[in-house]
This record gives sequence, structure tokens and C-alpha cells, in this order.
Amino acid sequence: MNLSLDISDTDLVGLRTRLQHRLDRKTKPLGSLGSIESLALQIGLILRSEQPALVRPQLVVFAGDHGLAARGVSAYPSDVTWQMVENFLAGGAAVNVLARQHGLALTVIDAGVRHDFAPRPGLLDRKIAAGTADAFEGPAMSEAQCLLAVRAGREVVRELPGNALLLGEMGIGNTSSAALLMARLAGEPIERCIGRGTGLDDTGLLRKLAVLRGVLERHPRAVGPLQALSAFGGFEIAMLVGAVLQGVEDRRVVVVDGFITGAAVLVAQQMVSAVVSGCVFSHRSDEAGHALMLQGLGVKPLLDLGLRLGEGSGAALAWPLLESAVRLLREMASFESAGVVTGDDGTSQPAEGGAAA
Amino acid sequence: MNLSLDISDTDLVGLRTRLQHRLDRKTKPLGSLGSIESLALQIGLILRSEQPALVRPQLVVFAGDHGLAARGVSAYPSDVTWQMVENFLAGGAAVNVLARQHGLALTVIDAGVRHDFAPRPGLLDRKIAAGTADAFEGPAMSEAQCLLAVRAGREVVRELPGNALLLGEMGIGNTSSAALLMARLAGEPIERCIGRGTGLDDTGLLRKLAVLRGVLERHPRAVGPLQALSAFGGFEIAMLVGAVLQGVEDRRVVVVDGFITGAAVLVAQQMVSAVVSGCVFSHRSDEAGHALMLQGLGVKPLLDLGLRLGEGSGAALAWPLLESAVRLLREMASFESAGVVTGDDGTSQPAEGGAAA
Repeated sequence: MNLSLDISDTDLVGLRTRLQHRLDRKTKPLGSLGSIESLALQIGLILRSEQPALVRPQLVVFAGDHGLAARGVSAYPSDVTWQMVENFLAGGAAVNVLARQHGLALTVIDAGVRHDFAPRPGLLDRKIAAGTADAFEGPAMSEAQCLLAVRAGREVVRELPGNALLLGEMGIGNTSSAALLMARLAGEPIERCIGRGTGLDDTGLLRKLAVLRGVLERHPRAVGPLQALSAFGGFEIAMLVGAVLQGVEDRRVVVVDGFITGAAVLVAQQMVSAVVSGCVFSHRSDEAGHALMLQGLGVKPLLDLGLRLGEGSGAALAWPLLESAVRLLREMASFESAGVVTGDDGTSQPAEGGAAA
Repeated sequence: MNLSLDISDTDLVGLRTRLQHRLDRKTKPLGSLGSIESLALQIGLILRSEQPALVRPQLVVFAGDHGLAARGVSAYPSDVTWQMVENFLAGGAAVNVLARQHGLALTVIDAGVRHDFAPRPGLLDRKIAAGTADAFEGPAMSEAQCLLAVRAGREVVRELPGNALLLGEMGIGNTSSAALLMARLAGEPIERCIGRGTGLDDTGLLRKLAVLRGVLERHPRAVGPLQALSAFGGFEIAMLVGAVLQGVEDRRVVVVDGFITGAAVLVAQQMVSAVVSGCVFSHRSDEAGHALMLQGLGVKPLLDLGLRLGEGSGAALAWPLLESAVRLLREMASFESAGVVTGDDGTSQPAEGGAAA
């Protein structure tokens, strides 16, 4: 794998310098576009261009079911997973609305939903099994299934056009898998990793905590990224891991949604540490463990809107900011071209002979 | 003035209930779209519709110069104001790029720039004078000029089409006016209201603080909103006050940019307190006093990207979120229409006979 995002690479250092210079000569005070400037720089580096353009962005939603869901770790029954997949395919979910708004191509992947779908345009059947096994009893998936899923995630991405990839998921119970992965791989106490998911009450939250403690105790030796992924699931997260790895490797801009896609990045990062620099973190979700996860990854998300929906909805909401970043880099005038005096050295002359006061 | 945004109005209470119900029946966990849901509710209330649509959004940038700028309160000379107006008219500034991206009509208003502009499409001449007077010596503008400017801001808005108004400004030195207005009208110590503007260093910041303290001492009786506005300026802020009042009164969605437009809302609020509920606050800027100002207004902004540019750039960056909010309200399926079981009462039946676990 050749990620080449390491800035010790001489060409990249040069590109970074040229991108920064380009941003600094734009008609605005230095750094006054804040995070949009860092974003422009990051996208320029990923796409290896001083004037990057985002082409044919692909929003991919991986869906899967979780054996653990039967233990009441979610406010919703597992059937909601397939029902929401149907909703995605019918165009009625939040992510559909946002994808239409921003011109994002949407593909839904059946990574392992406990339901047989009729073939449909926009749906890819990559089902590993009809839901993972109960992680409380044994591993959520076998190592072979896990590798298969990661590979499938890679293949899905490889076949997609464009240079930007927005990642989302659907899977009742998957905040539990994400919390377990975070607890084990980031070494955080499980109570700091969990949250209400899509709507647990206090009793439900305590039940979830007890179940997840039990799962962690059941799998003491699942410490590596793939072992933890096998132990805790799920299929959609494993495919997301593959998608992140492939997306970054292909030098696509990978836009990460919330807590669950974040957990996939955590797994991918332990396989290839440089992966994080190829990812744009779209938002900090309302899920309690997410802020800590982002902090652990050392990243600052674009939005903080109290979202806790998943589906890639946060990635889609943040998308126009990426588009803004590259457009500002490409289209804004420089001090020189616009004839605006600079605040610091005054080397650029005003256009109509006005003197700087 | 008939703002009618008071929820004690029976019709509005009914509309609010219907909007909330509509949001709650969408295929997502209750409240899981966070601030986007509150935004959808607010826009629905402003536009008096359960299925609001944003039509012909207008981005208006008011520009003016400040007598106080000669005292070194900004890192940039006053000439940058007119040079940036030229840049707006040539399409090269950040706000132009963002307006093009989002299909926002852009109008620039010469509220009082120290420069004679050749007439141009997209530029409205409402010049009150060539810059305000030095607020350190006397009032920045006369009461008559102030009223004229507020009225001009109202007239500008009244003549614009559409039902959404994004407000921005340009004026070297205007963070000083905004800080003075905040200190006086919100009763905050001036040192908590100031910041580096577009790029002051430490020495510059101390100089700014000393100057602004002097200005406050010079105008001890400027305590009402219009008196403070007259004393501290500027013309562009006074026009923004009129624009906010007219925009809210017309029941347009008023999108507020950063610290300076925020100060205009502060003035407008002291004239008509309900004005705040008609405003969407687009972002928390990097300007030190802005967080405190928003807190004082009791509002939560959409973005927090460390912006400190002005021009309406933050309002434009946030615009797609407003568009998302109304589209989600209009286009998302309900649990009933999509056949998804709900997590709470399970009253809605799955589409294909699947049983809720």
C-alpha cells in the first residue's frame, strides 16, 4: 500500500507550501477562513493539486445486522435495519434528501442484513451472512468472514467513479460494536464509549453497559484491529474499514460520518496509521463517546449539530463545506490580481493609485 | 410593526405543534437531526408553513468606512474597504465564490465608503457620507444620519425579492464599532468585547482597547440603541439594523453572519425584542467577543469554524444547512409512509409483514 500522505515526502512538502502560499495570497486576512482553509489544504494534498476539484462524489451506505441487538442494546428492533434499507432505496430517508440536494450518487450495500432484498438499482448485494452472531456468546464473525467483509468494502470502493467518498451506515445495534471497538482499540473504559445510540432511556443505557462489559470480558484476547473487529462486529463496520483503506489508498477524499464510521477509521488506523490524514471528519455527533473518539484520533470535525442519525447524513450535511473549500482555493482573487493592499507589508499596490493609510 | 413571532399567538402555537409532529414522524429517531430540526422548525414558523421553501435568497453586503480607523484600531488601512468593494463587484472575494456556489443573488451597498464608485450592476449607492466621523472626538454620525441609514437599510430589503436574506458587511474598523455597541448595549466590559479583528497583533490589540475605552468615556449618555449607534457607528451597521428589522418584519428568514452583523441584531433587538426569533445565526466567529455576544442573545449558531472574515461569508457557508432543513421537512418519508416500525410504541407496522423484535 502506498499512501504517500507522509509529509516527509519532498514533493508533498513542496505542494503543501504552494497550497499555503496560495491560500495566504487570497483577498482575506491570513487564516481568516479558519477550518475551511485547513480543509482546502488537506483536500489539495489528498488530490495532489493546487487547484483541486471534487469529481462525482459517491455516498456509500453499508448496512448490516447485529446478533447483539437481541439483547436489547438498541431502542429499535433489528427489523428497522432492512426497513430503513427499503426506505433508502425508495428515496425517503434523510440521506436520500441530502444526497439529492448535493448531487451525491448514493449506493446502498447489503453487508449482512437479516433480510432478503429483491435486486434493485442502487443496492449492492455483498451479504456475508444474515446478521452477525451474538458477540456475548462468541465472536460476532469468524476471522474469514471479517477478512471477506474488509475485502468487499475495498472492492465496492474500487469500482466507484470519482475522487470523493462519503461513508455512512445503517445497522440496529451498531453503536454497541463501535463502542466495543473503541474501548478495546483506544483503551478507553467502556462507560466512556457508550451512549444512547438512536434513543435508549436510562434503563436501556444501563442494560447496554452491562451487556457490553460482558462482551469485553468474553473476548480478552481480541486486541489487534482485525481480532477486535471479528469479535465485536459488524459486517457493515468491517466493510467500512475496507472502504476507508481503499479510499485513502486511491487518494480519494474520504468523508467520515459519525460514531460508527469513526470506529471503522479507528480500526483502519491501527492497520495503516496514515489513514487519518486522508479522512475528513464531518461532524461531532451527540453520541456520548464520539467527542472522545475524535480527540483520540487527533482530529477536529467540521460540524457540531447534535446529530445522532448515521446513514452518512452528517457527511452529506458537511459536503458543501468541502465544495466551498476547493472553490475558494480555485476561484478567489489574490491580493495582487484584485489590487488590494495587504495589511502587513503593503507590497501589493492599490488598483487605482489609492495610498495605504 | 407586526412581527407576530410571539408564540402566544394561537395560530403559531398550532403551527409549531404541527411542525414538531411532522419532524417527529420522519423516518429517524426523535430529535436525531439535532440543530437541523430546530432550524426546520424555526424556518417553518418564520415562513408560516409546514412545508417551507426558501425562494430567491438574497445576500446583501453593506460597506462603510470608519473615522476611528485612523487611530490604528485595525490591521488594515481604510482603503481596503473600497478595494474590497471593487473585489466584490469583480467577483473575486470569498463571498462571491460562495454566492455563486449556492445560487445566492449578491448586492453590495455603499453605505458610506470613503471612495467614489463608478455605477455598476450589483452596487447600490446609499452613501450617507464618505465614512463616519471619529467617534473618539464626537458621535460617529448625527442622529439624522443614523435614522437615514436605518431607513435606507429597510428600503434596500423592501425592494429585494425572495423570502430569505443573508447579511454581510465590509468596513475597516467595524469590529471596533461592534465591540462598542456590545459593551454599551449588553453591558459587558469592553475588554471582553474586543478581539483582533482581521489580524491585530498584541500591541495593536492594546492600542485598540485604549482607544475604545476613550470612546466609551466620550459618550456616557449614549445608552439607548439609536444613541449608541449614532455615537459608535457605522453607516453599514446602521443599515444592517434596518435590514434586520425589515427582514424580520417581512417574515423573511434573516441569516446573520458574524460579530458585526451580530452587533446590528443587538441594536435591533433593543428596539424590537422579538427580532431574534426571526434570525438564524450562521456561525460563531473567531473574534473574541462573539461567543459572549451570542450567549447574551441566547442563541446557538450553526457553524463554529474559526472564521473571522465577514462579508457574509459565514452566512453563505451555512446556507446549505438551511436548505437541508427545509428539504428534510418537505421530502423525508414518515414512519407510516415508509413502513418502518417505531422504537417507542410500535404503532406503525412494517411494510412487508416483518414483526418488530
